[in-house]
Amino acid sequence: VTKIIDPSQVAEAFRAELRARVAAIETPLKLVGLLATDFGPSATYASYTEKACVDTGVAFELRRVQRLEMEREIEAVNQDPMAHGIMIYYPIFGVELDNYLKDQVSPQKDVEGLSSYWMKKLYRDERFIQDRSSKKAILPCTPLAIIKLLDAAGVTVASVNSATGPPLEGKTVTVFNRSEVVGRPLAAMLAHDGARVLSFDIGGPLVFSSQGMEETNLSRRAALEQSELVVTGVPDRNFALIQASEIRSDAVCINFSTIKNFDDAAREKARIFIPRVGPMTVTMALRNTIRLFENFHSR
Amino acid sequence: VTKIIDPSQVAEAFRAELRARVAAIETPLKLVGLLATDFGPSATYASYTEKACVDTGVAFELRRVQRLEMEREIEAVNQDPMAHGIMIYYPIFGVELDNYLKDQVSPQKDVEGLSSYWMKKLYRDERFIQDRSSKKAILPCTPLAIIKLLDAAGVTVASVNSATGPPLEGKTVTVFNRSEVVGRPLAAMLAHDGARVLSFDIGGPLVFSSQGMEETNLSRRAALEQSELVVTGVPDRNFALIQASEIRSDAVCINFSTIKNFDDAAREKARIFIPRVGPMTVTMALRNTIRLFENFHSR
Repeated sequence: VTKIIDPSQVAEAFRAELRARVAAIETPLKLVGLLATDFGPSATYASYTEKACVDTGVAFELRRVQRLEMEREIEAVNQDPMAHGIMIYYPIFGVELDNYLKDQVSPQKDVEGLSSYWMKKLYRDERFIQDRSSKKAILPCTPLAIIKLLDAAGVTVASVNSATGPPLEGKTVTVFNRSEVVGRPLAAMLAHDGARVLSFDIGGPLVFSSQGMEETNLSRRAALEQSELVVTGVPDRNFALIQASEIRSDAVCINFSTIKNFDDAAREKARIFIPRVGPMTVTMALRNTIRLFENFHSR
Repeated sequence: VTKIIDPSQVAEAFRAELRARVAAIETPLKLVGLLATDFGPSATYASYTEKACVDTGVAFELRRVQRLEMEREIEAVNQDPMAHGIMIYYPIFGVELDNYLKDQVSPQKDVEGLSSYWMKKLYRDERFIQDRSSKKAILPCTPLAIIKLLDAAGVTVASVNSATGPPLEGKTVTVFNRSEVVGRPLAAMLAHDGARVLSFDIGGPLVFSSQGMEETNLSRRAALEQSELVVTGVPDRNFALIQASEIRSDAVCINFSTIKNFDDAAREKARIFIPRVGPMTVTMALRNTIRLFENFHSR
C-alpha cells in the first residue's frame, strides 16, 4: 500500500514554526503580491499566498497591475521600506521577458529566490550571503519545497547521518523538467546534497552530481530503474505518463506539475507518493520572507 | 529604383576608425570567442568575428568548449587579465539556460551587451556608466548595428537637427521580433531616440514611445501603412512575407533574420533596402571591446 503524503500537513508543521518566528519580530512583516494576469493558476496561487500569510501573521497586499506596469511596480516595492518581500505571479509575457522581470526584483526582497543574484549562489553551492557570514542564502521556493517534502518522507538521512556524509549520498534521483525555475535548481540542490541526479528535458538527458553537470545517453527506462526518487514537473499532456512497470517498488514519487505525470498504477506501486507541492511552495515563500527580513531589514 | 545598402561597406567605414583607435592603444587587445555548438550559423559568425578582429588589429582567440564547460570557461575568461572581451556563440542549450549563461559574463568584458547589468541600463535609457561619468554604456551589438545602418541610410536626423529634438522624432517604425536579444532592446533604443515603435511578436503588438510601452490592437496592415521604417527578424518560414502592397513607397526596410522576411516585390518597392546586418554586428562587438577597454581596463 502506497503512503500518500499530503503537502498541506507537512506545510502546517512549518507554519507553526513560522508563526512563532513572526510573533517574535516587532516589525509588522509585509509581503506584496503582484498579479498581472487573469491566467487561472496565478490567481489561485495568489489566494493560496494570502491564506498562508493570514495563517502565519504576515500582512499580504495583492496589487493587480497591468503587465506593462509590472516593471515600475516592482521598482516601487523595491523602494518601499514597509514591504519586506515581493511575490510575482508568472507567466506574464513569456520566458524571455518574464526572465528580465525576475531580475528587476531586489535580491533583498526576492522571496522567490529567482533573481540572478540568488540563482548564482545556488548553482555555486554558496550557502551563505558571504564567506564567514552566518546569514543564509535564499533558495527558490518550489525546489526548496520539494526538498523539504523529501525530508518529510524520510528520504534524506540528514538527521541520523549528517556526521558521516551529505544527506542524499548514494541516492539516485530522476527529475523530469529542467526549467530555470524548478528543474535545474532542484537538480543542482539535490546534487549538492550528495545525490546523483538524472535530469530529463526536451534538451535531452544530463547527469548532475558533486562533479557538476555531465552529458549522458541514459534512457528514461534505465534512469527510472536506478532511481529511488522520481520527481516530475511536465506541464505537457503529450508526455507519456510514467507507468508502474517503469518505477521501482521502493520508489518515492513526487509530482509538482499541475497535471498528472504518473498513471494510477504507478501511483499505487510507489512506496510513497506526493501528488502536489503547492501548499509547501507558498510556505517556503513565507520562510524566505522571514529570512530576508532577518538578513537585511532588521536592525 | 530601390537603393540597396551593403552592410559590409558601412562596416568598413567603422572599421577604419576602429583600426586607428586600436593602433593608439599600447596594450594588445584580445577578444575571446567561446563556441560550444556545431550549429552552422554560430561557426560562421565565429569566423566573421575572426576576420573583423584581424582587420582591426584585435587578437582573437576561439575556444571550442563542451557546452557543459561553458560556465567554467566564461569564469576563466572573466578572471584572465589578458582578455578584454568575451563573445559567446548562441544558441547553446535553449532560451532559459542560455539566458543564465549571458549573465555569467562580467559586465566589464561583455562585448555583446547582453548581461542584465547592461540591459537594465539600456531599458532605463541610462547612457553612461554612472551619473556624471563620461564613460558610455555598452549597447547590444545587433540593435546597435541596426541603428548605425539606419544612420547610414540617412534616416536619422541627428547630424543636422540634434539641437531641435531627438534624432528619430516624428518617425514611426514597425519591428517584427521582440526577443530580449534584438527586438525589444532595439524598440526601446528607437523609442529613446524619439521614434514611435510598433512592435510585433507572437505575444501580440505593443507600442514603444518616450512614454514607455503601451498595449495596442493595431493590425500589421495599419502599422505598416504608418511606418517609414520596417525592421524584420523573424526566423520562422511560416511568417507571411511582407508584400509590396503592405509597405509605403518611401519605406526604409531592413531584415536581420537569417531568412527572407520580405518578398521580392516588396524589396523592389522599398526606397532603401538593407538585406542583412551581420558584418555590422561583429563590427559593433569590436567597437564595444574598445569601449570596455577604455572604460575598465586602461589605466
